[in-house]
Amino acid sequence: MNINSLRNNFDKLDPHGLGERLRSVRARTEALCAPLEKEDHCIQGMLDVSPPKWHLAHTTWFFETFVLLPFGQNYQVFHHAYGYLFNSYYETVGTFFPRSQRGLLSRPTVAEVYNYRCHVNAALDQILENYTGQNWQEIAERIRLGIEHEIQHQELLLMDAKYNFFINPLKPAYHSQSPIRCPEPPPLAWMEYEGGIVEIGHDDDQGFSFDNERPRHKTFLRDFRLGTRLITNAEYLSFIADKSYQRAELWLSDGWRTVNEQGWQAPLYWIKEENNWLLSGLAGQHLIDLNEPVAHLSYYEADAFARWSGKRLPTESEWEYVAAKLPIEGNFLDSGRFHPDGARCSGLTQLYGDLWEWTQSPYQPYPGFRSLPGALGEYNGKFMCNQMVLRGGSCATAKDHIRASYRNFFPPGSRWVFSGLRLAEDL
Amino acid sequence: MNINSLRNNFDKLDPHGLGERLRSVRARTEALCAPLEKEDHCIQGMLDVSPPKWHLAHTTWFFETFVLLPFGQNYQVFHHAYGYLFNSYYETVGTFFPRSQRGLLSRPTVAEVYNYRCHVNAALDQILENYTGQNWQEIAERIRLGIEHEIQHQELLLMDAKYNFFINPLKPAYHSQSPIRCPEPPPLAWMEYEGGIVEIGHDDDQGFSFDNERPRHKTFLRDFRLGTRLITNAEYLSFIADKSYQRAELWLSDGWRTVNEQGWQAPLYWIKEENNWLLSGLAGQHLIDLNEPVAHLSYYEADAFARWSGKRLPTESEWEYVAAKLPIEGNFLDSGRFHPDGARCSGLTQLYGDLWEWTQSPYQPYPGFRSLPGALGEYNGKFMCNQMVLRGGSCATAKDHIRASYRNFFPPGSRWVFSGLRLAEDL
Amino acid sequence: MNINSLRNNFDKLDPHGLGERLRSVRARTEALCAPLEKEDHCIQGMLDVSPPKWHLAHTTWFFETFVLLPFGQNYQVFHHAYGYLFNSYYETVGTFFPRSQRGLLSRPTVAEVYNYRCHVNAALDQILENYTGQNWQEIAERIRLGIEHEIQHQELLLMDAKYNFFINPLKPAYHSQSPIRCPEPPPLAWMEYEGGIVEIGHDDDQGFSFDNERPRHKTFLRDFRLGTRLITNAEYLSFIADKSYQRAELWLSDGWRTVNEQGWQAPLYWIKEENNWLLSGLAGQHLIDLNEPVAHLSYYEADAFARWSGKRLPTESEWEYVAAKLPIEGNFLDSGRFHPDGARCSGLTQLYGDLWEWTQSPYQPYPGFRSLPGALGEYNGKFMCNQMVLRGGSCATAKDHIRASYRNFFPPGSRWVFSGLRLAEDL
Amino acid sequence: MNINSLRNNFDKLDPHGLGERLRSVRARTEALCAPLEKEDHCIQGMLDVSPPKWHLAHTTWFFETFVLLPFGQNYQVFHHAYGYLFNSYYETVGTFFPRSQRGLLSRPTVAEVYNYRCHVNAALDQILENYTGQNWQEIAERIRLGIEHEIQHQELLLMDAKYNFFINPLKPAYHSQSPIRCPEPPPLAWMEYEGGIVEIGHDDDQGFSFDNERPRHKTFLRDFRLGTRLITNAEYLSFIADKSYQRAELWLSDGWRTVNEQGWQAPLYWIKEENNWLLSGLAGQHLIDLNEPVAHLSYYEADAFARWSGKRLPTESEWEYVAAKLPIEGNFLDSGRFHPDGARCSGLTQLYGDLWEWTQSPYQPYPGFRSLPGALGEYNGKFMCNQMVLRGGSCATAKDHIRASYRNFFPPGSRWVFSGLRLAEDL
Repeated sequence: MNINSLRNNFDKLDPHGLGERLRSVRARTEALCAPLEKEDHCIQGMLDVSPPKWHLAHTTWFFETFVLLPFGQNYQVFHHAYGYLFNSYYETVGTFFPRSQRGLLSRPTVAEVYNYRCHVNAALDQILENYTGQNWQEIAERIRLGIEHEIQHQELLLMDAKYNFFINPLKPAYHSQSPIRCPEPPPLAWMEYEGGIVEIGHDDDQGFSFDNERPRHKTFLRDFRLGTRLITNAEYLSFIADKSYQRAELWLSDGWRTVNEQGWQAPLYWIKEENNWLLSGLAGQHLIDLNEPVAHLSYYEADAFARWSGKRLPTESEWEYVAAKLPIEGNFLDSGRFHPDGARCSGLTQLYGDLWEWTQSPYQPYPGFRSLPGALGEYNGKFMCNQMVLRGGSCATAKDHIRASYRNFFPPGSRWVFSGLRLAEDL
Repeated sequence: MNINSLRNNFDKLDPHGLGERLRSVRARTEALCAPLEKEDHCIQGMLDVSPPKWHLAHTTWFFETFVLLPFGQNYQVFHHAYGYLFNSYYETVGTFFPRSQRGLLSRPTVAEVYNYRCHVNAALDQILENYTGQNWQEIAERIRLGIEHEIQHQELLLMDAKYNFFINPLKPAYHSQSPIRCPEPPPLAWMEYEGGIVEIGHDDDQGFSFDNERPRHKTFLRDFRLGTRLITNAEYLSFIADKSYQRAELWLSDGWRTVNEQGWQAPLYWIKEENNWLLSGLAGQHLIDLNEPVAHLSYYEADAFARWSGKRLPTESEWEYVAAKLPIEGNFLDSGRFHPDGARCSGLTQLYGDLWEWTQSPYQPYPGFRSLPGALGEYNGKFMCNQMVLRGGSCATAKDHIRASYRNFFPPGSRWVFSGLRLAEDL
Repeated sequence: MNINSLRNNFDKLDPHGLGERLRSVRARTEALCAPLEKEDHCIQGMLDVSPPKWHLAHTTWFFETFVLLPFGQNYQVFHHAYGYLFNSYYETVGTFFPRSQRGLLSRPTVAEVYNYRCHVNAALDQILENYTGQNWQEIAERIRLGIEHEIQHQELLLMDAKYNFFINPLKPAYHSQSPIRCPEPPPLAWMEYEGGIVEIGHDDDQGFSFDNERPRHKTFLRDFRLGTRLITNAEYLSFIADKSYQRAELWLSDGWRTVNEQGWQAPLYWIKEENNWLLSGLAGQHLIDLNEPVAHLSYYEADAFARWSGKRLPTESEWEYVAAKLPIEGNFLDSGRFHPDGARCSGLTQLYGDLWEWTQSPYQPYPGFRSLPGALGEYNGKFMCNQMVLRGGSCATAKDHIRASYRNFFPPGSRWVFSGLRLAEDL
Repeated sequence: MNINSLRNNFDKLDPHGLGERLRSVRARTEALCAPLEKEDHCIQGMLDVSPPKWHLAHTTWFFETFVLLPFGQNYQVFHHAYGYLFNSYYETVGTFFPRSQRGLLSRPTVAEVYNYRCHVNAALDQILENYTGQNWQEIAERIRLGIEHEIQHQELLLMDAKYNFFINPLKPAYHSQSPIRCPEPPPLAWMEYEGGIVEIGHDDDQGFSFDNERPRHKTFLRDFRLGTRLITNAEYLSFIADKSYQRAELWLSDGWRTVNEQGWQAPLYWIKEENNWLLSGLAGQHLIDLNEPVAHLSYYEADAFARWSGKRLPTESEWEYVAAKLPIEGNFLDSGRFHPDGARCSGLTQLYGDLWEWTQSPYQPYPGFRSLPGALGEYNGKFMCNQMVLRGGSCATAKDHIRASYRNFFPPGSRWVFSGLRLAEDL
């Protein structure tokens, strides 16, 4: 198994630098779990959610399976059953415990999972310190992939903790950092872009990327406009006030069915109390801030809002074409707030961080796409159906994890993602 | 309600010609039902299927609702409850009877549905004969849409009858026209096409189209090759023999789940009997013909076959770019056989007729898409999510109904469609 | 296979008399289907319902399987697949078509089913005319069982037709015999009975019975009172008006769950229209008659009404102890009205006919119960769990089919039965 | 709210004795949880199971709701939301958190639940120490009910822990007390009993009982025989070896459906490994002991075994009539082994302890039954439908909790109960 196609600027990545990044990312996962009680580590509040304990173990399993087992010298597997328990969906690695039952396992305990992490960390340290062999390039690329993988699970951890706390009638808070009240954002304005043939996708010479961002390729854009900022709670309230959740003509057929089956009346985490809307977040419940961007929408809701506005969602090509020229700055995981912030400048803003932006693009392979060889080929490619692309990262995404070419993807009915919405239109 | 966007070469369409086409299409629907017993008209073999009786009534309701009620002079509704019973999914027209329960209605009887057809036919005749008013353009366009709509339901009628008979242990046949045994097809060869910016979509000056085919627009193609013919049963048997239905790595994640949940081992209508594969068709069961194109595949199976072949499915742009240069010739509904035929020439063939071809393109709005105004806007646009595009028509599609730009669409797990598969690859 | 335990006064039953009864019962089944259109014969409005066509065929299959195949001389099976299609639930006879899919079969057509009936009728005639052999006793007993079985399906036919028409928005009527308006019934009074050891169950010397009525056995009754008549719609309306469908404390736990899951607010076939309650019946919809007995209740509703009344339902022993002394008179299938009538005399009345009466007795084997040998043992015995006993027959039960010892049984949530309610209480 | 009907020999029960029993039972609940990790406290392995943490809290809520809130002087509710979270099913007390979601709550933590227990224990101590008022009788009866209620939940705790560990691929053990290997039991023999009118049910003068055991009443028994001991694993293996799980004729209809839907091939906790049967228990997995009584059967399996044996299950009247004459001795919770033991003497044995014995009696009200007044009336009465009675207690039942008249009840498909089987037959 050789993941050549991952190969990019890793030759520049020395074992020392890689090891430092590895340790700091691994430590951050544990720091993110620090506010959780042992009991909190076991809960799977709905099918999409995994217990925090499972994230701690699965990210460890990833290194064990893809780095230590093929390349570790005399590596001893920590526990023979963990391969079954903590494989997420890699069919070619072996069978795995049903996803829907992850919340039914009290064992291993949290303490045992931490032992597992220590065991694997130590073995990774050993590889990083001692290895000088011919496989170094391959090993480094896989460790780098494991690091990015673990960062993805850091965001999932926060998404899942937020959901698990939300459904608990005791309304526990993950932390006490109340969201900052936002000033009134500048009016929504429009940036114009000329179309033509453009290139999108990741350039192999530009450092790490996932396979689904490659190859860089030409595409044709029409002239378009992009909204300067994310849609706010205030704007979304107008949509609700216009009875949009009761008007079939604004919705895709599957969306309308979902709205009715699920009884949706507002985004996830909105709670109507008498005449007020409360928002349930990681810091508990608070009155909705009208100036914040609207969050935790499904694609269906984003699409309906766009239709109601007489606009549309951007394509992922349009989004990337614009974003690629901008520096990666914004409100990320690194701030420790894990809550979207309001737009604070009148130009084009919020493309990175705050909230993932739904695009109107189904998640499909780029022309010429090749998935990674072997089991790692299951990482992204097999999900390229029935999902929609989101772009730009969120307040739960690490800053050094995101790129202009980064493609996130979720089924159109998903709402526990830190997702938001930006409008576009044809010129 | 004005459906300007439908407007194309209708001015050339005189009432007389339109009336003739209307009557012949309406008569063909009834002819297609002639082999059915009254009992056969009532059955809904699965959720996707509608009883033949329902098709007879719904196509009539379409004219009543969109032509006679807004434009008929003194038109008397045939039955006050039929609007509820035979509206398919037009939310803005009113509520409708649950689709899943269409097979629970013994009334109206078949005879009453035919009375309904007569009543509406007579009123349409009257409009066509007498009308000279200012709305003629609008009326003609709506009648034309109703005609194309009814042709679509003719294909559905055959799909549904085929399915309803298939699940019956008595194995009834719709007709006695056994499929013609096919000669061995020419070897699969590859046509090469140079990429660049091309235009696809329907040109408004070129006659009727559905809204989802418009507007004509530029897109960028890479160089590609297209297989000369459809994949055959013989080729698909190799895929099965290679244990592909048991190998997760060949499948999309949703496809693999579906294969296992549904216990798929072969395409729909394939029946293993001892060491033989039988095919269940409208003429009953017969030994599979290895030279025929493989039919009644889901998108998941078409995609897995392509992956197994080291190829891919074409995009809808590639398909249309190639097909647009070809005459519309092939094995259509008009032959009365309703069964795909084998490839009989060595060049590029079978693009039209025989079987709809799955493309790798999700069903999405074209850039600049506008759905029809009013309730007719629900015809196509609201389904642009979670479905895949098929192209080219089938042996159950009328010849004068299909075009290069025609976009059919179904969820990726659908198999009762007359669907097949053609391969493509990058140069 | 010898069904000795069926043996009772059959020696007195000559072939001639048996044949006459057979022919008249078989003819009545067909007469009951006469008002139905062909389309009506195919519908399965819910899982409990079977299409009328299925009843016509299944009752025929019963004679073919249990009489003609074991005892017919040179009997030729009508169709090799009918054994699979029309076996209801006799596991030891062979596999059978899934009950839930009976409404998915358009074939055999109604005409073919009638041919099947003719074929079997002719073969039965032949046996009855010519047979003088040693098996006569066994044959006669099985024919007698087949006759009673077909009468049971006559009631099911009416239950099912009523339901199928009810769910059709066109509100078709089975016949035009509107229910007779009832005079105000006499006030509910109480008959007192002294307890002690009594005998219930069928006495083998007293003619035909099903195995579940045997053996006659002793049981102990406490002193009790029995209500003189069935509970009326007026009385049940008081229960509804007292918000009983919203008060958990009146209901069994399973009943309360069912009320909420199903959204029950009234018995089946009650339709609230503005301020009126309509009843949907075989003669279409009409204003509810307050003087009629309340019909189409589940056990849960009957039990809740009794609790609300401060009374209870009778046990089956109590019911039988009282009924055994009464002549079998009442409003039966024979009248052709198929609708319950109001109480018309002030003494104990309505025990037979009008409506089956829910008892508080779970359907269990009597002490010493032996089911029939062989496949016929599946007739009754295997259902002795999770069902409740009803007594006395209904307006859709044939008069010569019912007895004091007759035990009908349905799951406690069933409502499409012609079921009603009589109260009892301890002294 | 006055629960007179609970009143029996409580006048003899002084506050001091009651307090001692309360404290020792409350302490035993906590001792039973001592081997569990915090993580184990949160798991709901299937719908019937509740997390151990929930049992700890719910038993506490019972005292808070039925003793402290109505009778505590200045009692301060521990947490306003616990009434909602820890009410099990008392509709008349208020709404409650959905049972199916008990495993989705990480909060309150285990530590918080223990604080809740302390808070309520202290308030109960205060009542027991200081109260001399007129309500003492009522209070004492409610405390006594709370004690028996908590003992019931001790058994549920063990049932639930056993199940939660069973489904965990790591196969954790609750404790290390392996079951004692049993000597070969004496051959199954039969005790004969003469029938007639007998009395069963609890006598009000004989101390505590639940409402469902009352009133003591006459019933009529036929002559019968009762098996001397429980059926063993060896005997049940013969049943399995006779392909009984594949033979429909041995099963009730609902049982046969369940066998096939659930894929049952053996009792719960039996695991086939190559040619051996392992048993999964609270001490982990071990080879099955042929001499042990067969455990964790559904009613359907017990009934099928009896039919296969040519016998039947006893009625609850028969069982009680026999058991009432025996001293309450056996293998109970008190031993700390929580595993059934083999029969060790040749006479009538094992009626109490080891395993609950399925009877053929549906759970129904006794003649003259009155449930407790108010919300406590929901304790037992509302479940008297669709459940079967079990008798005699198990190795997870406290010795001082069981009586001859004690009626346990579960739906016929339940298998996580410590249930077994004893045969009976008619003379």
